[in-house]
Amino acid sequence: MAVYTDITEIDLKHFLAQYDVGELTSYKGIAEGVENSNFLLHTTKDPLILTLYEKRVEKSDLPFFLGLMQHLSERGLSCPLPLPRRDGELLGELSGRPAALISFLEGMWLRKPEAKHCREVGKALAGMHLAGEGFEIKRPNALSLEGWKVLWEKSAERADEVETGLEAEITAELAYLEAHWPKDLPAGVIHADLFQDNVFFLGDELSGLIDFYFACNDLLAYDVSICLNAWCFEKDGSYNVTKGSALLEGYCSVRPLSDEEREAMPVLARGSALRFFLTRLYDWLTTPEGALVVKKDPLEYLKKLRFHRQVSSVAEYAPAIEVAP
Amino acid sequence: MAVYTDITEIDLKHFLAQYDVGELTSYKGIAEGVENSNFLLHTTKDPLILTLYEKRVEKSDLPFFLGLMQHLSERGLSCPLPLPRRDGELLGELSGRPAALISFLEGMWLRKPEAKHCREVGKALAGMHLAGEGFEIKRPNALSLEGWKVLWEKSAERADEVETGLEAEITAELAYLEAHWPKDLPAGVIHADLFQDNVFFLGDELSGLIDFYFACNDLLAYDVSICLNAWCFEKDGSYNVTKGSALLEGYCSVRPLSDEEREAMPVLARGSALRFFLTRLYDWLTTPEGALVVKKDPLEYLKKLRFHRQVSSVAEYAPAIEVAP
Repeated sequence: MAVYTDITEIDLKHFLAQYDVGELTSYKGIAEGVENSNFLLHTTKDPLILTLYEKRVEKSDLPFFLGLMQHLSERGLSCPLPLPRRDGELLGELSGRPAALISFLEGMWLRKPEAKHCREVGKALAGMHLAGEGFEIKRPNALSLEGWKVLWEKSAERADEVETGLEAEITAELAYLEAHWPKDLPAGVIHADLFQDNVFFLGDELSGLIDFYFACNDLLAYDVSICLNAWCFEKDGSYNVTKGSALLEGYCSVRPLSDEEREAMPVLARGSALRFFLTRLYDWLTTPEGALVVKKDPLEYLKKLRFHRQVSSVAEYAPAIEVAP
Repeated sequence: MAVYTDITEIDLKHFLAQYDVGELTSYKGIAEGVENSNFLLHTTKDPLILTLYEKRVEKSDLPFFLGLMQHLSERGLSCPLPLPRRDGELLGELSGRPAALISFLEGMWLRKPEAKHCREVGKALAGMHLAGEGFEIKRPNALSLEGWKVLWEKSAERADEVETGLEAEITAELAYLEAHWPKDLPAGVIHADLFQDNVFFLGDELSGLIDFYFACNDLLAYDVSICLNAWCFEKDGSYNVTKGSALLEGYCSVRPLSDEEREAMPVLARGSALRFFLTRLYDWLTTPEGALVVKKDPLEYLKKLRFHRQVSSVAEYAPAIEVAP
């Protein structure tokens, strides 16, 4: 939940005058997104989202994020579309922050998704991977192997505060991933953060994907493994093979995974579990008590990581998804 | 800013099934109100506000608040209207909280109001006072003289931490107010918290009043004095006589203040300044550092209180508003 910057009605009016939109009738700060300030605007035409980019977002990354949403939207993916100003720019400034006006996507994220929803998520992710082809701007994944090592250096010496033996376990895990990380799989634009709150549904129908502020260039199958972690585990930490099957089958129905991608799934899933474990661990150790942010438990991802370590083949994620012999 | 309770789409669907409203297309927690959790709902018909009442609101007060909004709305005041369920009830339950569905009021609150807006606020407040006539349920003002004394007892011994001499000054002020508080002025339903964020405008036109969760029965002119404090001082603490004149003239154009009410204005304004000083002081002294709530500076209201202490007649608030000789 986040509204870091307030805006005055006068500044907002000047800002909106640069766009061809209806007349403003209300604006409310909304509790969505943890990196930016978001406002839901009502106008005499369509509702809109106004995003003010706070310090955690690199300003130099904004052309990638906004351009990507435009690119994906033009290729038929349902996602928020940044509106151009009258001068063609996608990015403006408001209350001293870079700011963009973005179409409002109706729909709700699911607090309790079922297997049928996981199937839709798989399809939509594959659709995004295909729609991302041809996008010219590149953004390397700052949260891949090299980034994990940097994060780990900052947390390693305090890791045993969380659980005894953790420092040794994660150090070994990083060494394993470095030795076994796949290098020649298909790459492209990935969402990299497709958790429940970033997928909207109307009824059981997926209405769109949002929040592309972790998107980057990386292995497409790595993005699939993030979704396995985000969508296919129960609250008690157990893996739900029905959901996993639905997600993978949904994905493959739009973009079939190659044998190499299937084979790599367990190591990719270890990597993505480690990635969220490390950022949560870092936040856990550095966020002061009582701060504005809800701290997410890093142990949830440690459990998932340990699960993936026992997996020997993609068939354990989805029995019907075999690797050709 | 506040969203204390999250709701699942499943619970929300069941809740909405009790009402005759359009189909839900989105819901967002909004950063509005400090006592409750508020969600802005889009439906296939009108947008709505869903309010979950958190612990700080007495459940036994809810029929007063919701009934009042309905009463005022039926009498033509523009304010949020609680929607009845199919069974006629205004109050339901969601996520273990009492919850109500309320019409969404378009408009924006003004971060930088001008005198012309103060005039509209005066008119609307008088309109509310007239519209409140005949409302059957009563709710005494828990934050009048007796309530101030209770609050003060909790803060007095630490008051000098805020400013040396404060304990003696406020004790004397309370004694003065107790001795001089008017008793026979016209009473009725007052808003009691008509600050900027509770008044919506579309352009320069006032579109409605919101947040009746401090409303109660008390002296009508006391409500006017709250608005003088809330709307007619500049950020540097100086009183703006142009705004004060506009507010009082606007009020009197709809409901003329009697001579007795005019005469009492300085003491009423001392009382309302003290009321906000005391709640802010209490929050200041008791809210832990780094908590979710932005602490408001009690000294702002101490300054206002000291200003009112120097005022000898209502003409100092608005030169054109004289008391008959």
